[in-house]
Amino acid sequence: MARRVGAAVERAGAALLEVDTTAAETVVAADQEINALQFEVDDRIVALMTQYDPVAADLRFILSAVRISVDLERMGDLAKHVAKTVVRRSPAPAIPESLRADFTTMGRAAVRISEKLVRILAEHDRLQAAQMSLDDDELDAVQRRIHEQLPGLGYGPQAAVDAALLARFFERFGDHAVRISHQVVYLVTGDVRLDRS
Amino acid sequence: MARRVGAAVERAGAALLEVDTTAAETVVAADQEINALQFEVDDRIVALMTQYDPVAADLRFILSAVRISVDLERMGDLAKHVAKTVVRRSPAPAIPESLRADFTTMGRAAVRISEKLVRILAEHDRLQAAQMSLDDDELDAVQRRIHEQLPGLGYGPQAAVDAALLARFFERFGDHAVRISHQVVYLVTGDVRLDRS
Repeated sequence: MARRVGAAVERAGAALLEVDTTAAETVVAADQEINALQFEVDDRIVALMTQYDPVAADLRFILSAVRISVDLERMGDLAKHVAKTVVRRSPAPAIPESLRADFTTMGRAAVRISEKLVRILAEHDRLQAAQMSLDDDELDAVQRRIHEQLPGLGYGPQAAVDAALLARFFERFGDHAVRISHQVVYLVTGDVRLDRS
Repeated sequence: MARRVGAAVERAGAALLEVDTTAAETVVAADQEINALQFEVDDRIVALMTQYDPVAADLRFILSAVRISVDLERMGDLAKHVAKTVVRRSPAPAIPESLRADFTTMGRAAVRISEKLVRILAEHDRLQAAQMSLDDDELDAVQRRIHEQLPGLGYGPQAAVDAALLARFFERFGDHAVRISHQVVYLVTGDVRLDRS
């Protein structure tokens, strides 16, 4: 799921910058596969649980696995939202030229976050998981910068709204990655009292 | 959780219309209690599961309970986002006068949805759960109307962005209620293949 989500956000980010409607439509269509994987996760959880007698550690694992699949599914949705905005504004670009650099940064950060997420989930790397919020800080900072700039850039309300929502999609993408990382830390350490605000 | 979320969105919606910073700050502060309840849900799930030998039906219940608490926590966040926007723009109103009617509608729909959600969760009412998407359709329609109107209303980009994001917060609030309702239907019927797109 994390790999597909990473591919989706990478393609969506590129489609946004290159006004590539075909690529954007691919992202929209491929989101169904991410959703389907969430059902597979559920099925496997139930199968595992009925096969084995669960102890507290298994339960902790299950709570985390369910939450992680919810967050990954949502990350797929957010990549899809970026792609849908591209399609909606096509053939015009969805973002103005002067925000291109900021959205390039956000797209790159989202891809980097996804790649880290794959490693964190595959290797249960607690250190990388704990550092995820630093990567997310970059997305938050760029989103704030875009929101603060918008009033002074002289855009029409449509362009301003598109830019604000697109920035929010990337920012939320990062938030979910942080939540997943917290779940992994919880899995590894049992420390549940992480900030979920 | 659903009751507190309902109280939060009701207070946040009223604070938005009345530019009531004090009420908005109460919503922001009270969100911690909703987050704490999510941890309580987890603790109770683990306690129940270690006490009893789970069968497939229990597992289904657990998957749903975990997801529902995730969605409720997120609904609390969205009410908080509305409240934070009120605080941020205070003493100026966060929404322009001409969108007042639309946001009144959204606020009312969100409250109605929350009240239904409490009943659905308390009574496992499948019919009401199935109808939740109709209430959500109203939020979607108003959001669409706000987004479509924005370019022609002559607002500055800041006001347009605020209105677009506020409308999105209410719309997402409804989406989570629909997801919870789907979980309840799944709980009652075992029918998992509901649209989660």
